[in-house]
Amino acid sequence: MTENGVMSRAKVLTIDTMNPTVKKVEYAVRGPIVQRAVELERELSEGMKKPFAEVIRANIGDAHAMGQQPITFFRQVLALCSYPELLSDNTFPEDAKSRACRILQSCGGNSLGAYSASQGIDSVRHDVARYIERRDGGVPCDPDDIYLTTGASDGIVTMLKLLVCGEGAGRTGVMISIPQYPLYSAALAELGAVQINYYLNEEKCWSLDISELQRALDEARRYCNPRALCIINPGNPTGQVQSRECIEDVIRFAAKERLFLMADEVYQDNVYADGCQFHSFKKVLFEMGPEYSETVELASFHSTSKCYMGECGFRGGYMEIINMDEEVKAQLTKLLSVRLCPPVPGQALMDLVVNPPRPGEPSYDSFIKERTATLSALAEKAKLTEQVLNTVQGISCNPVQGAMYSFPRITIPDKAINEATDQGQLPDMFYCMKMLEETGICLVPGSGFGQKDGTYHFRMTILPPRDKLKILLNKVKEFHQKFTQQYS
Amino acid sequence: MTENGVMSRAKVLTIDTMNPTVKKVEYAVRGPIVQRAVELERELSEGMKKPFAEVIRANIGDAHAMGQQPITFFRQVLALCSYPELLSDNTFPEDAKSRACRILQSCGGNSLGAYSASQGIDSVRHDVARYIERRDGGVPCDPDDIYLTTGASDGIVTMLKLLVCGEGAGRTGVMISIPQYPLYSAALAELGAVQINYYLNEEKCWSLDISELQRALDEARRYCNPRALCIINPGNPTGQVQSRECIEDVIRFAAKERLFLMADEVYQDNVYADGCQFHSFKKVLFEMGPEYSETVELASFHSTSKCYMGECGFRGGYMEIINMDEEVKAQLTKLLSVRLCPPVPGQALMDLVVNPPRPGEPSYDSFIKERTATLSALAEKAKLTEQVLNTVQGISCNPVQGAMYSFPRITIPDKAINEATDQGQLPDMFYCMKMLEETGICLVPGSGFGQKDGTYHFRMTILPPRDKLKILLNKVKEFHQKFTQQYS
Ligand SMILES: Cc1ncc(COP(=O)(O)O)c(C=O)c1O
Ligand SMILES: Cc1ncc(COP(=O)(O)O)c(C=O)c1O
Repeated sequence: MTENGVMSRAKVLTIDTMNPTVKKVEYAVRGPIVQRAVELERELSEGMKKPFAEVIRANIGDAHAMGQQPITFFRQVLALCSYPELLSDNTFPEDAKSRACRILQSCGGNSLGAYSASQGIDSVRHDVARYIERRDGGVPCDPDDIYLTTGASDGIVTMLKLLVCGEGAGRTGVMISIPQYPLYSAALAELGAVQINYYLNEEKCWSLDISELQRALDEARRYCNPRALCIINPGNPTGQVQSRECIEDVIRFAAKERLFLMADEVYQDNVYADGCQFHSFKKVLFEMGPEYSETVELASFHSTSKCYMGECGFRGGYMEIINMDEEVKAQLTKLLSVRLCPPVPGQALMDLVVNPPRPGEPSYDSFIKERTATLSALAEKAKLTEQVLNTVQGISCNPVQGAMYSFPRITIPDKAINEATDQGQLPDMFYCMKMLEETGICLVPGSGFGQKDGTYHFRMTILPPRDKLKILLNKVKEFHQKFTQQYS
Repeated sequence: MTENGVMSRAKVLTIDTMNPTVKKVEYAVRGPIVQRAVELERELSEGMKKPFAEVIRANIGDAHAMGQQPITFFRQVLALCSYPELLSDNTFPEDAKSRACRILQSCGGNSLGAYSASQGIDSVRHDVARYIERRDGGVPCDPDDIYLTTGASDGIVTMLKLLVCGEGAGRTGVMISIPQYPLYSAALAELGAVQINYYLNEEKCWSLDISELQRALDEARRYCNPRALCIINPGNPTGQVQSRECIEDVIRFAAKERLFLMADEVYQDNVYADGCQFHSFKKVLFEMGPEYSETVELASFHSTSKCYMGECGFRGGYMEIINMDEEVKAQLTKLLSVRLCPPVPGQALMDLVVNPPRPGEPSYDSFIKERTATLSALAEKAKLTEQVLNTVQGISCNPVQGAMYSFPRITIPDKAINEATDQGQLPDMFYCMKMLEETGICLVPGSGFGQKDGTYHFRMTILPPRDKLKILLNKVKEFHQKFTQQYS
């Protein structure tokens, strides 16, 4: 070994010597197309000429970034918690003050600045449990089963982490829907687990067929040990809302096949279509009787980031875990304690989401008004998106029953497919990149979420304000027509 | 395979089928002793009789929980950011308002509720870079090297994650000090990396000897691939502040041995002892000239949780990474994007920490007054702790030069060691558990941090308010005397 100089010039950490599982991770929602959008924004701001005046981002479910307003009551309470001197300010409503006091009393030193218990603040977990009981028509919920998290992302990754074990054909396999939210594939890649794809049925409005679950499972059993089944309902990126029957079937399937169920229900308030309703896995499970409710292991996830509040930046969330082995629960608590605790302002916000103003309280009316306005605007935009996109030849789009996204199927001409392939690009990435360069609209190619071979899609959020959404939809229409012409 | 019922009663996820690396994780700061403290608090509140009136927690560096007050300016800005309607409130100082506006302008939709860029808000990263330049006497800092994190914990785990690869004797080894902050051992266990212990020199005030680094490294090379060296300065749990010479030696060692340096500098403002000063690894590295500054890979970590602000609950932090391979950096950014972003209120708080009121601004004087008061109270308590503990026969304690902890060595009589062993407990756990039951004082046994075989310690924070700290120290004294008598 020689002295410094030359020796140390070779990096310790290189692409060849870094963690190989990290290298396998992919995350399209913030991938190359978004990086290019950021560049384009900078170029625009530096005065560079483009065929568009602004970049419109429809790539990520980030409501406030698209102009959605926060719920006044929530922010009042957060301000009071941050700076309790405001408690003597008479402009704040009494219910905001009493909520803030209650939260602060549950914090160490009455401060948001203290670490909380690793599982989350006690009183918040109690409020979450009461919320779940109300939501699920009285099905009981134990606060000990509630874990507050750093956004739903954190809960999902933590649960997957617990589940991974084995080697070779004994390696843990996890079933995820295709199309999926790419957090799942990314976490599975990082953890070295086996991703088992089951395909949603685009022809039947992205519904879930048990026969497809069975097919995927049976195939996977040949090369791994399938142990968990993940469902996103309402769906991202596909916007479907599962029926009650479907959920029952899934639970029966999980029980029969001994799969740990993971229900991602972060869009539980985002249901727009007539005849659709949100059914929590927890509720359905309990209504199926003790044969299921006392045996099927279920983790369900919620977040402050979506629904009517859209408070992504606070990274609030919770998971409810039922029928989990007690020893494993102790291991989970230990694992969480290493990171100390989820962000306390996010926990406070989660508390407000599950314990909003009640009838008779001073902020009740304005809360209901704000919430309704946001949800009806979303419902309207869901409809509008579906309608406009379906007028375009070569685009076909299922109804956006819930969540915040449309995932239309697009026809890409062979000539374009060939050109993309020549450039080493996936055809839908080629399409979306071209759309971005020509129109300033930032969408995510379907390949980032997974799609049946030979089909192409993009995902767009319905979050831009109505007028901007109209512009966006028209630009997509024009672009698609031009693109189709150009490559025919 | 039979139908449901019987079959599904066996859990999918059990202690035997869960992730084995998670099982290996340990985290003493929130271990059994803290769980017992929580129980005792509940028992007290239910009126159960105990030999003490309250539990005093000196187990965790959680300043606000121990009554430390937040910096008024920081909380004003956070309230303004949470509820921008307050910007028209004349009771808020102008500098708080302008800081809040600046932060909000950098947020999507001018809201803390939008996801930020995964690397963190641009303007905050710029402010961090300028802070580092000021702190380090003008050594340049590139905002592109700054990554905002969910507390320092998140940054540390993420960096370790990148570094882990290989199998068997090629497995990544990471050098950590013993005693250590148990986040390191926990993360290494979870990642399946090899923990390489180097011992701090208790006789020389917990200083770091290069010969000991060399010993540990040479031994480890026989069974793993040592790739990184972690240093905590000022030290947790040991409270030492490394000298400039020592840091130079460590850097030379890392360069010679090709180790990635990780400098945990979350206590950078917590320096109390005369003649001690904080030197950042970054600054020393740059002052050693291009041979080092252009080659040695360094990640350094900071947090909102410690120093004079003690804002643990917000989970704010940053890491600065220099000389990292560009491809690896891209992989890091991708990895971070899966979790979307660190909590935005924590990012805002980090911004305030690195960009506090400046001379001439309306909040400057009160900021300085509050900060000075907190830091001098800590300095006084550091001195007090050392003094009182050193009056006890059988306890010997190095000066608390910095950070927030004392890690005194305790003599445990053989009879007590035997009784502990009979009960299947480590002797220092036995000691601390007995202290908790008899006095209500919650400390962490030295074994949770690592210590030389045959030596025993406990860690206590210096955070309780002065009067309570005095009570605590006297109780420790009495307990130790009684314990020693009982087992002699
Ligand atoms: C289906 C689904 N699950 C989880 C998340 C993670 O959200 P967060 O971590 O912000 O709670 C998202 C975010 O878009 C999502 O769409
Ligand atoms: C040395 C050290 N590093 C890192 C941390 C993590 O702190 P946080 O994640 O709250 O920033 C702590 C907390 O006590 C610590 O003592």
